[in-house]
Amino acid sequence: MDKIWFGTAYYREYLPQERLEEDIAMMKAAGINYVRIAESTWSTFEPQEGEFDFSSVLIVLDRMHANGISVIIGTPTYAVPAWLVKKYPDVMATTPKGLNKYGPRQKMDITSPVYRYYAERIIRQLLAVTAAHPAVIGFQIDNETKYYETSGHSVQVAFVKYLRKKFSNDLNALNQAFGLDYWSNRVDAWEDFPSVEGTINASLGAEFQAFQRQLVIDFLGWQADLVREYRSASQFITHNFDFEWRNWSFGIRSEVDHFATSRLLDITGVDIYHPSQSRLTGAEIAFAGDLARTTKDKNYFVLETQAQAFKDWTPYPGQLRLQAFSHVASGAGLIGYWHWHSLHNSWETYWKGLLSHDLLPNPVYQEACTLGNELAKLPELVGLTKTNRVAMLVSNRCLTAIDWHPWRGHQFGGYKQHQYNDQFRDWYDALYRLNIELDILDADDPRAMRYDILIVPLLYAASDALLHRLNRFVADGGQIIYSFKSAFADENLKVRTTLQPGIISEACGVTYQLFVEPDNVSLTADTFAFPDETGQVSDWMELLEPSSPETEVLARYQHPYWGKYAAITRHRYGKGSATYIGCHLSSQGMEQIFSSLFASASLTVGATFPLVVRKAQTRTQQTLLFLLNYSATPQKVRNPLRQARSLLNNRQTETGEMLEIAGWDVVILCGEEAQ
Amino acid sequence: MDKIWFGTAYYREYLPQERLEEDIAMMKAAGINYVRIAESTWSTFEPQEGEFDFSSVLIVLDRMHANGISVIIGTPTYAVPAWLVKKYPDVMATTPKGLNKYGPRQKMDITSPVYRYYAERIIRQLLAVTAAHPAVIGFQIDNETKYYETSGHSVQVAFVKYLRKKFSNDLNALNQAFGLDYWSNRVDAWEDFPSVEGTINASLGAEFQAFQRQLVIDFLGWQADLVREYRSASQFITHNFDFEWRNWSFGIRSEVDHFATSRLLDITGVDIYHPSQSRLTGAEIAFAGDLARTTKDKNYFVLETQAQAFKDWTPYPGQLRLQAFSHVASGAGLIGYWHWHSLHNSWETYWKGLLSHDLLPNPVYQEACTLGNELAKLPELVGLTKTNRVAMLVSNRCLTAIDWHPWRGHQFGGYKQHQYNDQFRDWYDALYRLNIELDILDADDPRAMRYDILIVPLLYAASDALLHRLNRFVADGGQIIYSFKSAFADENLKVRTTLQPGIISEACGVTYQLFVEPDNVSLTADTFAFPDETGQVSDWMELLEPSSPETEVLARYQHPYWGKYAAITRHRYGKGSATYIGCHLSSQGMEQIFSSLFASASLTVGATFPLVVRKAQTRTQQTLLFLLNYSATPQKVRNPLRQARSLLNNRQTETGEMLEIAGWDVVILCGEEAQ
Amino acid sequence: MDKIWFGTAYYREYLPQERLEEDIAMMKAAGINYVRIAESTWSTFEPQEGEFDFSSVLIVLDRMHANGISVIIGTPTYAVPAWLVKKYPDVMATTPKGLNKYGPRQKMDITSPVYRYYAERIIRQLLAVTAAHPAVIGFQIDNETKYYETSGHSVQVAFVKYLRKKFSNDLNALNQAFGLDYWSNRVDAWEDFPSVEGTINASLGAEFQAFQRQLVIDFLGWQADLVREYRSASQFITHNFDFEWRNWSFGIRSEVDHFATSRLLDITGVDIYHPSQSRLTGAEIAFAGDLARTTKDKNYFVLETQAQAFKDWTPYPGQLRLQAFSHVASGAGLIGYWHWHSLHNSWETYWKGLLSHDLLPNPVYQEACTLGNELAKLPELVGLTKTNRVAMLVSNRCLTAIDWHPWRGHQFGGYKQHQYNDQFRDWYDALYRLNIELDILDADDPRAMRYDILIVPLLYAASDALLHRLNRFVADGGQIIYSFKSAFADENLKVRTTLQPGIISEACGVTYQLFVEPDNVSLTADTFAFPDETGQVSDWMELLEPSSPETEVLARYQHPYWGKYAAITRHRYGKGSATYIGCHLSSQGMEQIFSSLFASASLTVGATFPLVVRKAQTRTQQTLLFLLNYSATPQKVRNPLRQARSLLNNRQTETGEMLEIAGWDVVILCGEEAQ
Repeated sequence: MDKIWFGTAYYREYLPQERLEEDIAMMKAAGINYVRIAESTWSTFEPQEGEFDFSSVLIVLDRMHANGISVIIGTPTYAVPAWLVKKYPDVMATTPKGLNKYGPRQKMDITSPVYRYYAERIIRQLLAVTAAHPAVIGFQIDNETKYYETSGHSVQVAFVKYLRKKFSNDLNALNQAFGLDYWSNRVDAWEDFPSVEGTINASLGAEFQAFQRQLVIDFLGWQADLVREYRSASQFITHNFDFEWRNWSFGIRSEVDHFATSRLLDITGVDIYHPSQSRLTGAEIAFAGDLARTTKDKNYFVLETQAQAFKDWTPYPGQLRLQAFSHVASGAGLIGYWHWHSLHNSWETYWKGLLSHDLLPNPVYQEACTLGNELAKLPELVGLTKTNRVAMLVSNRCLTAIDWHPWRGHQFGGYKQHQYNDQFRDWYDALYRLNIELDILDADDPRAMRYDILIVPLLYAASDALLHRLNRFVADGGQIIYSFKSAFADENLKVRTTLQPGIISEACGVTYQLFVEPDNVSLTADTFAFPDETGQVSDWMELLEPSSPETEVLARYQHPYWGKYAAITRHRYGKGSATYIGCHLSSQGMEQIFSSLFASASLTVGATFPLVVRKAQTRTQQTLLFLLNYSATPQKVRNPLRQARSLLNNRQTETGEMLEIAGWDVVILCGEEAQ
Repeated sequence: MDKIWFGTAYYREYLPQERLEEDIAMMKAAGINYVRIAESTWSTFEPQEGEFDFSSVLIVLDRMHANGISVIIGTPTYAVPAWLVKKYPDVMATTPKGLNKYGPRQKMDITSPVYRYYAERIIRQLLAVTAAHPAVIGFQIDNETKYYETSGHSVQVAFVKYLRKKFSNDLNALNQAFGLDYWSNRVDAWEDFPSVEGTINASLGAEFQAFQRQLVIDFLGWQADLVREYRSASQFITHNFDFEWRNWSFGIRSEVDHFATSRLLDITGVDIYHPSQSRLTGAEIAFAGDLARTTKDKNYFVLETQAQAFKDWTPYPGQLRLQAFSHVASGAGLIGYWHWHSLHNSWETYWKGLLSHDLLPNPVYQEACTLGNELAKLPELVGLTKTNRVAMLVSNRCLTAIDWHPWRGHQFGGYKQHQYNDQFRDWYDALYRLNIELDILDADDPRAMRYDILIVPLLYAASDALLHRLNRFVADGGQIIYSFKSAFADENLKVRTTLQPGIISEACGVTYQLFVEPDNVSLTADTFAFPDETGQVSDWMELLEPSSPETEVLARYQHPYWGKYAAITRHRYGKGSATYIGCHLSSQGMEQIFSSLFASASLTVGATFPLVVRKAQTRTQQTLLFLLNYSATPQKVRNPLRQARSLLNNRQTETGEMLEIAGWDVVILCGEEAQ
Repeated sequence: MDKIWFGTAYYREYLPQERLEEDIAMMKAAGINYVRIAESTWSTFEPQEGEFDFSSVLIVLDRMHANGISVIIGTPTYAVPAWLVKKYPDVMATTPKGLNKYGPRQKMDITSPVYRYYAERIIRQLLAVTAAHPAVIGFQIDNETKYYETSGHSVQVAFVKYLRKKFSNDLNALNQAFGLDYWSNRVDAWEDFPSVEGTINASLGAEFQAFQRQLVIDFLGWQADLVREYRSASQFITHNFDFEWRNWSFGIRSEVDHFATSRLLDITGVDIYHPSQSRLTGAEIAFAGDLARTTKDKNYFVLETQAQAFKDWTPYPGQLRLQAFSHVASGAGLIGYWHWHSLHNSWETYWKGLLSHDLLPNPVYQEACTLGNELAKLPELVGLTKTNRVAMLVSNRCLTAIDWHPWRGHQFGGYKQHQYNDQFRDWYDALYRLNIELDILDADDPRAMRYDILIVPLLYAASDALLHRLNRFVADGGQIIYSFKSAFADENLKVRTTLQPGIISEACGVTYQLFVEPDNVSLTADTFAFPDETGQVSDWMELLEPSSPETEVLARYQHPYWGKYAAITRHRYGKGSATYIGCHLSSQGMEQIFSSLFASASLTVGATFPLVVRKAQTRTQQTLLFLLNYSATPQKVRNPLRQARSLLNNRQTETGEMLEIAGWDVVILCGEEAQ
């Protein structure tokens, strides 16, 4: 691709009045060069069974093409028509709460053959009339697909067959692996298998969720295969992944394996939503981009991100532009707003687009115009590559396992929401504030071996093979940082019978038998400084004991009884070293630790948040430095590059020259790295 | 009517022992002149299908009549007998949670023909034996009727027929009006219409709720017609409306259109419950009374209000009496306690009546005796009229709309409970504390045109016709005060495509495109003083821009980015003026603003809360001033009337004489207004 | 029995690997002399219908016996096999939420004949092969049995038959007793009786819960009868009761009548779980032990208590030992940890046992070894008896009644959880901190008459007979202390029509008509000192008026309106006296009051919490004093005994000698009481 794709989702079907030409004129003024259409309006295209009408799509294709705007076609399968549900009520998913009611999108059973039959027909009909259109650059299959908690009879039947295959028909092996003797959950005949909706067995529950994630892969694979029959060689297939949603994009999904699912695609697409106004930090842009980029080691699409959105997200002047350059700095090749015009009806009326409901130019749209025209003039930003020495390992299975066995609060009561991501974000955000760039990949991904440093939070459930490989990574010269609760259980969530932390004890030089609740405990450490309350331990602490004479105790607990135990250790193992963080610290506490651990690794650029620094290489092997000011206060930093040019004002800048970046502003330097 | 009706609900059927004569003697001692009976004990009257026994009612009628106490007969339809539900389980309503279980009242399907058949029979049987009894002054049809979330199959069928009629069989018009293309919700054949229980379309959801409110009107209309066959010309038909319940009467109901439903009645009845003890303010007595009085522009009944009630409501000495005179001051012609004796069993055991469970005289009963005898000696209080220059416009449809699109918190998570009423009460209570009396009527009511000043909070969803009429109101010399979010959408909740606030921009001289979350924002204003934190903006702020050279900016935002926008504007338009409040302020903040806006309108009497002043005209055209002290501290105020008499101590008082009203006490002046 | 039983639950079936011999060796090292097995693994014993395999049990019996460790056999009925539920889905209980899902234990219908059929067979099969084994000392029937909310069709049918019998077929009596005329709930034909799942009638609801508690008695009685067919004269039958669970053992159960159910058993067993680390107080050990001991006036079993358990319970050094001696001090004859080894899978993976998942010695296990060997050397601790002059009366029926009519918050919204137990614990814990030892028994138990002092919190629903008996208790010389809300209703929850507190007014010399919410109210009293905030009244206050000239007002309310009423009164009646506490005080406030009331009763030993003192008599009539330090700070106290020996260090100690007890340590003195 030879440009940054800059555009929006566009829903002509939703508009209360005809204004395609005005929209196109306003898009062109904003430098918009693509729109995404068609992914949500099945009932408009097929108002009655077998009656098709794609005129609303075709006119958009024609008019966009005539105006030099490209189009991504979305398959319209995430929301089903009323006639289909009236005729076949069972296309709605049966969840632990019963049969879903019609109304919201993403409530159908993605495994239903009836749904698949009608979905295939609408996809084929749509692609038959649109795929060859010259406006069409690619396809998005479905949207933010998850399994929607489908767990009815046929899903249970399929799960038993999945288990039978996984365990090679050996029920004893399954009973043993999952510990089903407990509370009389043992199953001694396949036909006795109960629905696992009510299971209290974490191994079985986690396996069911893994199976459900596989349903998403099966479904999107099926769609990708269908689309492949129609698309040309130059057209891409993408999908729009979303992230754990806590009123914004927060972490990895329990319902989707972003990594495995991305393999079905030509390019990974994501949507990224985040707090804004005075709460804008860019952290979500960074983590989601790092993950998306790493899935396929290349540029990715931000298929949706916020324009005005909600009252608390409508950006301050400058923020829309700052966000866009942050996406680019992370490796995004496409920035798509959700969405062009605000909606005049229904659920997302207050999730505003670039245009307000008045469909007129406004300050946010005006800023998009400035930005769109800047992007169009900066070919240096296209096709950026990034080479990080650090990677963070994450895992859907561990996320599920931590849902069953949380580290905060009490298992049988209280707060539980995806605590894996709390810890992931505590660590990621600390590194983000230190300007330590990294890749994010699945814990089992063999590419992990290529990094110098691995950051490994909550690798709770992991196979022997993975843990041995990580030991080898250290032995071969890598540096690894584990959190508490790592390596505790095997890949079936069966807790290991060895001294904890099991296999990685060898590399870490540490063991523990007890873990307790921190009760007014803080760390005492020579190695680290903990200003203010940052040394406070909360929620989880393991009572570590060095198991090797070479183990360094980096921090201990301040406590009348537990003071004799270690909290953080480091151990040289082979050519590398392994650091074990045996307790939960706040993100600010971890920032102190990472800052110290990485001081010698010269990963930082001497600036920290709110000045965010991102580095990338251009197609011509020049170095780009994005200096992003995530605050209202001007920030200063010296130019570290040689022969550098400031791209946005096209001005040369000397090495060591003091640069000032205004509030919520960005400076992009292009030059060569000093040695 | 020639007296203030003063009485209680009386449930002889509930009493654990016979004591009718003792009760009547104690009632007479308290000046009680009516009781309400029969509305809850269907199973006592018809213990088995078709077996009727009204002896428990008839003896009460006879004995009350013999003692000069009148009776209101309630139709006993709000609670159904066990035998009916055993035989026909479907008389219970099917709600989104399934078929209701037997036990609580008000859980049946008011549209069920089976229920209607048996309800008609018990009503006819009861009235046949009681209506002509000389004790009976009128009838209450059902009680606190709502639709009880009935939304099962037959209700859905009826709703589709309702839509077909409303849209003249034109599905395209419906799809367009409600924006059903969104998320494939489009319906292209009437027979495909899904149950709307799960709908995410605000227009469709709000229309369904409007339809459900119509079910209440249909049901009560049907009962009123039945009763009309039996009642004589001198007997009234009333109903007991309740209000949004937040452990007390808080605001208008989402489930009942008080205004339209009142048209079925001869006189509007309400129940009013409120905080007490140190939290007693009288605000609920005032707002509910203002609404009830305005429904029919005449006196209304307070069919239920608290006697001892709960442990936190048992009144301090003086409060019961203060409350009663406050009801009268608002135009009440009847004050009924719920209820006579405390209940010895079941759900409302701790909702105590005038008598405790011991059925003996007690301090609260003693205070009722004092009061009852005072009321009997003050014919001046009968048939009061009130003439207010100010009205507040409210709307069930807007309440529902704000439920879908709240102004506080986040649409997709967090606090949502009927925020329309939060805003309504913030404004109403500010005016109440300023002693600005007003009427409350439905936004669409043409009577709105007769006022000098209209207060219009959250008129979110309104037809073009209504908004044009309100513009004309201003042009013709009226003064109007709108809140934020007004006029945003049409009557179908479709957001307008014009610059906001749409049609009323003309009268208001202001527009906006963006609205944001206030983040430590307060108002800066020359016009208003904001002591303490009262100028703090919260939850919602619109970035207003004057659209007319004559628009006065009354307040701006203090904020680094939004400081250039207006927060409150006033605009002369024709002979009147329109004020637009573009943000949410606390009730205390609004009190500052109303105080300033109304300073020149001489609406106030120079006294503010906790001294509450209410004005009314007697049948002989004298002016009554109620001086109500809602505090424990004595209050002073000068008598503003000429030739005035203090009714409660029957003492003359000079104009300008300083009067002292003791804690939780009341003074009623009767005289002529000074010029 | 000639020793303290010291052991654990042992689940060989759950272990991921064979290690029976290692486990036995480690048990012996720890002084463990019994294990409890078999109570949870039906599906292991009967993997398919009618196919039995008890080999996993038999080998444990043989090997334990060979090593001198005894065994308690549990009937494996609390968790049902998958094959049974697959074949007969209705063995799962139908609750108000529908049919239970398979997965958790304790979700079946204990009244189901299908369940009973299969349960009987597995019990008989198990006992046939194990009962005569020489290792087996006794049997536990089921585990923590409750009725699991079973309330489906057949349960409702049975309940109607139960009512018909209770009311001798007289429906009118039932309607009258329960006040069913209210809201048309009257039932006039038995066949009309609705399911009471939805009832809003507190009397009916409480009666249904009493009926459900009877289902538990029926079920356990049936199991006890079965076991009795197999057991020998020397083998006991016990059951493991649990307590209201608030993440630990908190109070009496709403679902089980501990007192009546215990009559089925030879010895009462309980599980006791409690906060630990810095939150360890021993109060749960004390109250649960006092209740268990009193059920049968003899030693009891602590069949389960915590070893490491959760991260917040893993004991500080010394705590495990302190806890064990506290159990003994309360009269326990058996201390069983739950459980031996931590579980490697499923729901309770983080409820750790004596061993961590590593199955190696660890600090907690080491402390158990010390303790086990100490116990083995102290025959003085076996068969202790206790003679208390004080008893506390509790009641399941009152607990249920307070659930319906809570004293804290609002009946129709807000916090409601078993407030009976809040009050029970407020009072119990105050007495515990004062070292006033007591027995706990059912309010209706005639043994109450044997005490000098009765403590009676929230005796809300009580028969006339009981209240008259309590009056007689006072008249005959007893001292009684009632809380607010006592005697308010009869045993059917019908509120009395007399002046409150009804029948006990005679003994208490006090009446009231009103009760209110305390609004910044504290007590004013000459009698009591209330340091800090301990005199603050919250949630409930009755406006008491002395009804006898001899009534002493011990405290009044500080309040502008309620200051004239009494808050606490004492009245001499016959030879005794009755104290009435008319309001809710914190546990700290009650501690002040009890301290004052009991100052003259010489019940205390001059030491208070954190030094806990427990007294008992040995089989040889010597006095044991347990001096238990529930803090990290050393405590000092003088030895009050004569001819005393300190058992744990086997040292003589002089009367009056100052003893120091280290943090979380215990001293046990054995000697004679001074006169």
